[in-house]
Amino acid sequence: MFSDKLSLPTITDVQTAARRLQGVAHRTPVLTSRTANELMGAEVFFKCENLQRMGAFKFRGAYNAMAALDAAQRQAGVVCFSSGNHAQAVALSGQLLGVATVILMPQDAPPLKLSAVRQYAAGNAALGVTGPSEVILYDRFKDDREAMMEHLARERGLTRIPPYDHFDVVAGQGTAALELLQDVGPLDALYVCLGGGGFLAGSAVVAKGLHPAMAVYGVEPLAGNDAQQSLAAGHVVRIDTPQTIADGAQTQSIGEINFALISKTVDAVRTVTDAALVDAMHFFAERMKMIVEPTGALAWAGALADGASGASGAAAALRGKRIGVMISGGNVDLGTFSRLMAERQQSRDKV
Amino acid sequence: MFSDKLSLPTITDVQTAARRLQGVAHRTPVLTSRTANELMGAEVFFKCENLQRMGAFKFRGAYNAMAALDAAQRQAGVVCFSSGNHAQAVALSGQLLGVATVILMPQDAPPLKLSAVRQYAAGNAALGVTGPSEVILYDRFKDDREAMMEHLARERGLTRIPPYDHFDVVAGQGTAALELLQDVGPLDALYVCLGGGGFLAGSAVVAKGLHPAMAVYGVEPLAGNDAQQSLAAGHVVRIDTPQTIADGAQTQSIGEINFALISKTVDAVRTVTDAALVDAMHFFAERMKMIVEPTGALAWAGALADGASGASGAAAALRGKRIGVMISGGNVDLGTFSRLMAERQQSRDKV
Repeated sequence: MFSDKLSLPTITDVQTAARRLQGVAHRTPVLTSRTANELMGAEVFFKCENLQRMGAFKFRGAYNAMAALDAAQRQAGVVCFSSGNHAQAVALSGQLLGVATVILMPQDAPPLKLSAVRQYAAGNAALGVTGPSEVILYDRFKDDREAMMEHLARERGLTRIPPYDHFDVVAGQGTAALELLQDVGPLDALYVCLGGGGFLAGSAVVAKGLHPAMAVYGVEPLAGNDAQQSLAAGHVVRIDTPQTIADGAQTQSIGEINFALISKTVDAVRTVTDAALVDAMHFFAERMKMIVEPTGALAWAGALADGASGASGAAAALRGKRIGVMISGGNVDLGTFSRLMAERQQSRDKV
Repeated sequence: MFSDKLSLPTITDVQTAARRLQGVAHRTPVLTSRTANELMGAEVFFKCENLQRMGAFKFRGAYNAMAALDAAQRQAGVVCFSSGNHAQAVALSGQLLGVATVILMPQDAPPLKLSAVRQYAAGNAALGVTGPSEVILYDRFKDDREAMMEHLARERGLTRIPPYDHFDVVAGQGTAALELLQDVGPLDALYVCLGGGGFLAGSAVVAKGLHPAMAVYGVEPLAGNDAQQSLAAGHVVRIDTPQTIADGAQTQSIGEINFALISKTVDAVRTVTDAALVDAMHFFAERMKMIVEPTGALAWAGALADGASGASGAAAALRGKRIGVMISGGNVDLGTFSRLMAERQQSRDKV
């Protein structure tokens, strides 16, 4: 089913990561909403990683991977690429662990994320850690960020901390679902957003590891359904960079480790439109008083598509059940957030 | 010091309210922010009542007061007036307890609050509870809402559930601070917003009841510093309806019960400008991914004014301490929220 050369994290690795993250990551709250329950005809538990440090679950994986480095690796520093949240996660972890960071970011990354990463990197330099802490911009549609990372790693002896296709990163991401299940007990279904697949893979390892009967669903943007295609094809399918407001899911393919885990543990992958993401963001803002970034709203949009559609088989299967929804992050510029909410209102006023 | 005719709630009454609210109100999360700690040079704990049911702490007091009614009172129904959050709280509590509600709201109340109250009231009627569940609008600057309420109470035999000057309402509001102290242990100082004074009074009862050395500060809008004036005068001072974006604090005076408790237990009352409220709202949105209404941002704005001002005596007194900040609610229209954030950005771009 998948390459047996790959070393895949298990629930034990997630539990190890949870111990490393104790007192470092926030134990984020699990929130509920009567309106959400009514919409779904089910009991919904939202794990709020938008309230995590640096505003996203990505801190868990990056910190876990960097805390696992040996002394020589820490001394030399690390390199990564990311559209934003992983970049912030690596920069913040570098600051906390005293490790120099080189971070490749797309030049069209959200300004909020760019400035946050630069702030963390500056903090890093102020700590006097060995080597440079710097941010390097690339063109998302032209440059080969992986080749750039390889070059930097070789030239400077840096350890790669990839955003998702990495044993310790995936184990770290799984700690959010572990906390959710510890807090609320067994669930019938879990919805998780999906870009590179690390959050979904880590969450699925936990869900199936603790409660094998639990259904696990990935949700990705309709504009980039590479995971759906990959599961259908039985191997990782690579697509063009998708055009979607879910900037954290603008990945061209899921990771090999993640594909191996997802094809083994995930029940199905759903897709949702950008309009459905904006609706879900509006729900979080108006009903739950939270700011959620477009990627962070994927899981709820996917759950709603399954559960609120009335007569469908998916809705019937969820009725009366206990459902977990992972909110991955909240790092959206307030200007962008306001624009998306205003455009939604305008298009509804027209109808 | 205050009228001994008044019956004042104690920590025991708050504990009774906490038992009534168990499983009905959300136990809202206590969140922290590294940036907040850095700004204050202290450890800050935010009690997030914007994440409470119907988006504000007001649910606690209203539900507690209505759950304490006898069978005949429940049968006859209740009446209240409110600029919004208390109205939603009474309407929702009526729905949960099967009690008819008549709610007086200012015609310029935020549209989000008006529509939410109407939805709860409609749900009430659908439950087939005795008597009408209705919303009556009044002119905040012309009508005498208290006289209107008295008239309705007499004519229809309704029990008054005032928004703040009420034994059981104050006891219910205190449960939020009780949860905060249960969750994080003793604090050195607590900041609480202040309109009619019920939230501050209830919180202070808890703080001084559990930890007498804890400092308690009220924070009200500079445009309406009636509580500050009242403490200075030694009696309740009544002012014109203040013009401030903090619609929940557009009260003309604090309640008699609240004045008695506040003058006995609160160390000082601070005032902040509307601009400081917008800055605090921006902090919550950008750094903590939460939507907080202007009134809900009062306590943090007041704490920042004390703590972030560097050399002042207040800042020195807070340095290295453990500080609680009560966020009272998140019920702000998204359009208003976006406009406030955009205007703030524009005025900063000009500088």
